[in-house]
Amino acid sequence: MTDLLHYEDFTVGESRDLGTYQVTAEEIKSFAREFDPQFFHLDEERAKSSVLGGLSASGWHTCGIVMRMMVDGYLGRTAGMGSPGVNEVKWLKPVYAGEMLRGRMTVLAKRQSQSRPEMGLVTMRWEAQSTKGETKIDMTGINLIKVRTP
Amino acid sequence: MTDLLHYEDFTVGESRDLGTYQVTAEEIKSFAREFDPQFFHLDEERAKSSVLGGLSASGWHTCGIVMRMMVDGYLGRTAGMGSPGVNEVKWLKPVYAGEMLRGRMTVLAKRQSQSRPEMGLVTMRWEAQSTKGETKIDMTGINLIKVRTP
Repeated sequence: MTDLLHYEDFTVGESRDLGTYQVTAEEIKSFAREFDPQFFHLDEERAKSSVLGGLSASGWHTCGIVMRMMVDGYLGRTAGMGSPGVNEVKWLKPVYAGEMLRGRMTVLAKRQSQSRPEMGLVTMRWEAQSTKGETKIDMTGINLIKVRTP
Repeated sequence: MTDLLHYEDFTVGESRDLGTYQVTAEEIKSFAREFDPQFFHLDEERAKSSVLGGLSASGWHTCGIVMRMMVDGYLGRTAGMGSPGVNEVKWLKPVYAGEMLRGRMTVLAKRQSQSRPEMGLVTMRWEAQSTKGETKIDMTGINLIKVRTP
C-alpha cells in the first residue's frame, strides 16, 4: 500500500499528462448501440448531415475515455475511495472517429473530510484535447483519496 | 418529421417515467474493463472489502445506463440536436450487480436560443432509483431540441 499515491501526494495547482487514446469508428458505434443509440453516433452517412457533421462519440463515451485515461494516468496507482460526482461536464466539440485525444488533469483544491479524517476530497479538472489542440471535453469533479497520515 | 417531439412538446414541471434497466455483473465488469478498471468494478471478492461493499457499476456506466433510458424514454423520438453538457452528476449510492433501476426525467426550464431561434435549450433533471426506492444517481443537464415553429 505504501507505494500507492495518497492524499498528501496531490498538490493544488499541479497538472499531470494522462497520455493518449485513439478513438475508432467501431468503438463509437459499439458504445452507442449499448448506451446512446442516436443516429449521429451510429451511422456514418446520416451523421454527415447532422448538426455534428460526422460520426462522433456519445458524450458519455468521451467521459468513459477520459475516465480510462485517469485510471491509467494516476488513479490506478492511487489509494482511491471512489467519487461522489462531477459538478460540470462540458462537451465542447464533437469527438470524431479516427481522432486521437490527449488527457490532462489539474488539481484545483483539496481538503480532508471533517467527519472522516482518513478521507481526502481532491477537486480536479480533467480535459481532453485533439492533436490539433482543440479541447473536446472539460470536466470538474472530486476524487476521494485516502489520507496516508490522518 | 412531424411526429417527432419538438421543443414545444416539453413543459416546465412535467415528469416522464423512463422505464427500467436491469444491471448485471457481466455488464459491470465489461464496462469497467474498457473504461474504469478499478477493482471494485471488476472483482466480486475484492469488492466486498472495498468502501463500496460489493461489485458495483462505474459511475460513468450508470450515466450510460441513464442515457439509454433517456433515448428509449423520449430522446429517440425527439428532434434532438445534441447536448452542450451536464452541470451536475451526483453518484449518491453504489449501483450493485443484480439491481433494477427505474429512470425519471423532469423538465426544469426551457428557452429558445437567441442566436439560433430554431434551437431550444431544455434543462432537465434525470434520476434513477432502485426498486427499493433508493436514488442512485441524480443529474442535471441540457438537451438541445429543435423548435417546430421558430
